[in-house]
Amino acid sequence: MLEKVSRLILLKDFYGPLLTDKQQEVLALHFEQDLSYAEIGHELNISRQAVYDLARRGERLLEGYEARLGLAARFSRHREQVLKLQQLAEAGPMGPGELAEAQALIRELSELL
Amino acid sequence: MLEKVSRLILLKDFYGPLLTDKQQEVLALHFEQDLSYAEIGHELNISRQAVYDLARRGERLLEGYEARLGLAARFSRHREQVLKLQQLAEAGPMGPGELAEAQALIRELSELL
Repeated sequence: MLEKVSRLILLKDFYGPLLTDKQQEVLALHFEQDLSYAEIGHELNISRQAVYDLARRGERLLEGYEARLGLAARFSRHREQVLKLQQLAEAGPMGPGELAEAQALIRELSELL
Repeated sequence: MLEKVSRLILLKDFYGPLLTDKQQEVLALHFEQDLSYAEIGHELNISRQAVYDLARRGERLLEGYEARLGLAARFSRHREQVLKLQQLAEAGPMGPGELAEAQALIRELSELL
């Protein structure tokens, strides 16, 4: 579940503006602010079923954009490489071994772009 | 003109799959393979005007996606930072000054993600 939540938050960060305002609002309240469908319905003055439909439709759209564009996956691979590089660089002075490792990571990064 | 061409190739790389097959084909032939609208019309057996309309519509869609999502700009800033980092790392052994510079670049990179 946590994985689903963080995935949807990531996808919404990328493709959210392609959804309707209502879909974005429902997804934000549900996944970012952890409100239940019933609570969101109360808040927005619509039925629980309407909230559910908006959320499902929004999720499907986000997954559809990712299936076609794959930009969230592309960014995630990037992020992993940058974090490895950061650990290496923050560990202190670089000997020839660390430098070679950093160069290899940076080359991979530039190929991902 | 060159700037427009490279921009459209970049946008097509990001958002191309959201266009129709015909729009993608026309943009690829025009911007990637440098065929004129007339040549493309001949190739696809449609009028020059139809090619023009497909290209304009495709361009507008790509620009519209970028206006809403800004992912090409996000990636471009990234690419610049990675290239700077690469120059620094490929220049050879890093003294304390170069290491500090690299660490700062990597931190900026991780904040862009």
